Amino acid sequence: MPQLGLLPRRAWAALLSQLLRLPCSSCTQAVRCHSQVAGAVLTSQLKAHQKKPNFIIKTPKGTRDLSPQQMVVREKILDLVVSCFKRHGAMGMDTPAFELKEMLTEKYGEGSGLMYDLKDQGGELLSLRYDLTVPFARYLAMNKVKKMKRYHVGKVWRRESPTIVQGRYREFCQCDFDIAGQFDPMIPDAECLKIMCEILNGLQLGDFLIKVNDRRIVDGMFAVCGVPESKFSTICSSIDKLDKMAWKDVRHEMVAKKGLAPEVADRIGDYVQCHGGVSLVEQMFQDPRLSQNKQALEGLGDLKLLFEYLTLFGIAEKISFDLSLARGLDYYTGVIYEAVLLHTPTQAGAEPLSVGSVAAGGRYDGLVGMFDPKGHKVPCVGLSIGVERIFNIVEQRMKTFGEKVRTTETQVLVATPHKNFLQERLKLIAELWDAGIKAEMLYKNNPKLLTQLHYCESTGIPLVVIVGEQELKEGVVKIRSVASREEVAIKRENLVAEIQKRLSES
Amino acid sequence: MPQLGLLPRRAWAALLSQLLRLPCSSCTQAVRCHSQVAGAVLTSQLKAHQKKPNFIIKTPKGTRDLSPQQMVVREKILDLVVSCFKRHGAMGMDTPAFELKEMLTEKYGEGSGLMYDLKDQGGELLSLRYDLTVPFARYLAMNKVKKMKRYHVGKVWRRESPTIVQGRYREFCQCDFDIAGQFDPMIPDAECLKIMCEILNGLQLGDFLIKVNDRRIVDGMFAVCGVPESKFSTICSSIDKLDKMAWKDVRHEMVAKKGLAPEVADRIGDYVQCHGGVSLVEQMFQDPRLSQNKQALEGLGDLKLLFEYLTLFGIAEKISFDLSLARGLDYYTGVIYEAVLLHTPTQAGAEPLSVGSVAAGGRYDGLVGMFDPKGHKVPCVGLSIGVERIFNIVEQRMKTFGEKVRTTETQVLVATPHKNFLQERLKLIAELWDAGIKAEMLYKNNPKLLTQLHYCESTGIPLVVIVGEQELKEGVVKIRSVASREEVAIKRENLVAEIQKRLSES
Repeated sequence: MPQLGLLPRRAWAALLSQLLRLPCSSCTQAVRCHSQVAGAVLTSQLKAHQKKPNFIIKTPKGTRDLSPQQMVVREKILDLVVSCFKRHGAMGMDTPAFELKEMLTEKYGEGSGLMYDLKDQGGELLSLRYDLTVPFARYLAMNKVKKMKRYHVGKVWRRESPTIVQGRYREFCQCDFDIAGQFDPMIPDAECLKIMCEILNGLQLGDFLIKVNDRRIVDGMFAVCGVPESKFSTICSSIDKLDKMAWKDVRHEMVAKKGLAPEVADRIGDYVQCHGGVSLVEQMFQDPRLSQNKQALEGLGDLKLLFEYLTLFGIAEKISFDLSLARGLDYYTGVIYEAVLLHTPTQAGAEPLSVGSVAAGGRYDGLVGMFDPKGHKVPCVGLSIGVERIFNIVEQRMKTFGEKVRTTETQVLVATPHKNFLQERLKLIAELWDAGIKAEMLYKNNPKLLTQLHYCESTGIPLVVIVGEQELKEGVVKIRSVASREEVAIKRENLVAEIQKRLSES
Repeated sequence: MPQLGLLPRRAWAALLSQLLRLPCSSCTQAVRCHSQVAGAVLTSQLKAHQKKPNFIIKTPKGTRDLSPQQMVVREKILDLVVSCFKRHGAMGMDTPAFELKEMLTEKYGEGSGLMYDLKDQGGELLSLRYDLTVPFARYLAMNKVKKMKRYHVGKVWRRESPTIVQGRYREFCQCDFDIAGQFDPMIPDAECLKIMCEILNGLQLGDFLIKVNDRRIVDGMFAVCGVPESKFSTICSSIDKLDKMAWKDVRHEMVAKKGLAPEVADRIGDYVQCHGGVSLVEQMFQDPRLSQNKQALEGLGDLKLLFEYLTLFGIAEKISFDLSLARGLDYYTGVIYEAVLLHTPTQAGAEPLSVGSVAAGGRYDGLVGMFDPKGHKVPCVGLSIGVERIFNIVEQRMKTFGEKVRTTETQVLVATPHKNFLQERLKLIAELWDAGIKAEMLYKNNPKLLTQLHYCESTGIPLVVIVGEQELKEGVVKIRSVASREEVAIKRENLVAEIQKRLSES
């Protein structure tokens, strides 16, 4: 993990005054202070740092670097996710990190306040993207694309209060899969749930459950409970917190803060406790109040069909119809879903990791139309994998089990036991590189053999090619296996072929 | 290429007034207008759009989406670049898209003005990263890392005037490789040049040349020509433009705009016309003025050693010592280099593509020390591949030669010639997915067989699995080769094995 380097006031003052007072003629390679502009900037920097004596070298709040070890884990997870998306026929695409601010406003409901805006530096007003869904809808409308199955892996940014323990960051990576186009009902929706199951199974995160609901059922429920239409969106946001807050606290928020009548809240309370399989769908069809609402009936009809397809896919037992699921984002219009892990896969004794949902999504049939000049709609359904949370779980598991990862893929170290063999090593290693073999050497004129062998052991390099005086004289090189310590001499001209043979066998 | 959708004023007014006037009870799935907040936002939006009648759906200035076709090309290029970095033993890592603003100031010289700042939303002052080098130096200092060989692929942002024809964007991808640590001279530097050669050869972009110089030689040249030290940085910026501007224009800028004495400019002019191989290094050692400058002599000594190693690597003929190379960024302290293509690889008659440099880098021994509380230095050398420009060349070449790329990897389409076979198709495709086979089906209850076969042809899917009434009765499925149109019936239970066999053969 990155350590924070605390920079004491005195050290900064010393460093900076050194920089500023250096006569330019003795300007070191390290510091180019001969520019007047630079000097001015340094002066203002100095002031800034003196005002902040506890200046710390750090990444911005809620963000982090990924170390090489973390990067390896991250890439394994992303590879698995992307290969699943490709298995389902998705194409890749990319959009800029920022969008015109007006493209993003009025898409996220209460979340909009968490958007990162760019400073007005005399051009367009821009914001960092908040998710990958709205840029996708903008792309479809802009290019008049009516049908597309795409995945997108990229960073998004939200100015949330970071509680890093829970795996929440202000910069995080999303992996999205979406199907855009006018199709027969629930077939693409069912595939999205199948994909979520395949990914969560593939990552071996332990048992999981996917909660399913429909925005039309949520709205219908609000209507029959007596929620004023003007409060639908904000009450929806409150309900969305039920996975993190107890019902009584959510109820309090709705009544005390959002002015909902207590009896209305209690009626909602009866519904949001319901969850179950397809039988609950049937039961809700019979519900005296809900069955009077046209929207809710549409939602229930679609859920019934969805469960039929999920059964054919063999994943129905992983899905729970859950009336407490609301999803925070404003753009959903139909089926919504969210995957939660049922237990943390760490060993007994390890700190249990609270992770929240690890994947989520839903149907948003109106979003593209909001961008289209004529309001032409392109129905869409999709899902997003919460890689950061999954990453935290996998990292925790690796710590628990003491798993180590190699951070490089180097196959061969080119080494020598003798002095003045740099030239030979350089010739040898260029030959290996040109043959596509992953090779390293120590960047020293005369490294010690032991140092070279230790480097292999500490970084996991399996083979060493050794050239010394004797070898040079005989026109051979030695190949050493780091694991067995066995060495064999082979003809210099057979080196590449021999290495390739050994690597293909291992 | 994305098309811009022009949104006429009248269409917007109509759309928005429709949204605003819709009674909430008839709220469609498409537009959730039941929130008071949403209403307020829409009203202000309406005003904004009325002020701007030519509102256009677009990406921000200087940025672009990557379509699936472009994404395939991009990923091929990145795969080649990253596999070269891994061949040289580099580890991956990542840093946030933005940094504390104070981390980035006073690192780039005249480029600093092009940084994207984030709006002050009541937290830290942040800027989008301008390159991957300064974040790397910050990472090293923050984690007290003294030695590291890493690569980093990521986007960076610069508010340049975009001249998109030349492949310059405000958001662009960089692929960096850097070696940090105290090593014997020029060994890591030579490896960086070897890597640039391997990548440019691998990408088959045609003939190229790598210009090499040393910042100490540049500074020494300025000193012996009589440039005042206060003007070193800004004159360096002017010299850096010599690849895009004629000497007479650069001279004019230095004299008229930057106040350099004409005779000083002319002395510089004599030097910057010099380029050649190692013999030019020898020649400069004898130069009556330059040989009096200690810094320049150090630089020349290192270049001589560098050429020795480049010869051992077999790449010396690709390298040109060029006194006009200056590199714009302030942080370089030693060897600098820049790769240029010698001709454009498009066919005769095609528009020649001006691309500028496609890779560049150098030594920056002082940057880490600027972040370290005690000023401890970590010498670094590295390179950056300009993927956007390379991407433009490859894309242009593909257009010229009419090359097509598949945007999906789907191996099998599950199809039916009959109505009411959705359930069978769903069961079949789930079986294929669970076996890791890349499969698609049309999202229709009853698609026409011809439509399904056309889909295979237009997207390049090689195999079709067909299930119909006859097949269901006999417990078989048909496998059809799209290319040969041959069909064979196989037992239903052998489907996965048979498909896997066919795919491994092809």
